[in-house]
Amino acid sequence: MPIVVATIKTQPGQTETVLNVFRAHAPAVHQEDGCLLYAVHSGPDRVVVVENWADGAALDAHSRGPALAAIAAGVSDLLAEPMDVAVLEPVAMGDPAKSTL
Amino acid sequence: MPIVVATIKTQPGQTETVLNVFRAHAPAVHQEDGCLLYAVHSGPDRVVVVENWADGAALDAHSRGPALAAIAAGVSDLLAEPMDVAVLEPVAMGDPAKSTL
Repeated sequence: MPIVVATIKTQPGQTETVLNVFRAHAPAVHQEDGCLLYAVHSGPDRVVVVENWADGAALDAHSRGPALAAIAAGVSDLLAEPMDVAVLEPVAMGDPAKSTL
Repeated sequence: MPIVVATIKTQPGQTETVLNVFRAHAPAVHQEDGCLLYAVHSGPDRVVVVENWADGAALDAHSRGPALAAIAAGVSDLLAEPMDVAVLEPVAMGDPAKSTL
């Protein structure tokens, strides 16, 4: 189950506009095959998406799909720096209930 | 429920050493009051912790507590750049089951 953390640093005052792009397209992402989690968060200078995919093939299909292309196009003029997308693996430790997305 | 995403960019070859610091202290964090999620992930150049706290007071207590101090001390010489800690709010959209940590 690859975990993805995507960080979108936004230009000043543009966080809500970026969130509206995600509001428009997150429902389609949620319906993609193998999408277990696609949770959008906001902070003062950024939007952060925490994702969980059933397997690498599902993540690959999402990465090539129309919803992500629409999101990337929608936010491209609103970024303070290039989007940072980290593909990660969970590491088991401590309490399993509190260490697993 | 504040969500925290902490990104630790690691020096080359040091990711496993950083993970061992988290393995030593994550069990204590999981027992802190109001810790709902403290999930550690690894990638080629980083360790990313996704956290969920019951409220701001719980996060404040964690931020001042001994477990985080021990983690910060343990990884301080292993960082490629300063640790990035983002305090975020979840944004509801789409399928609730797939948009909430």
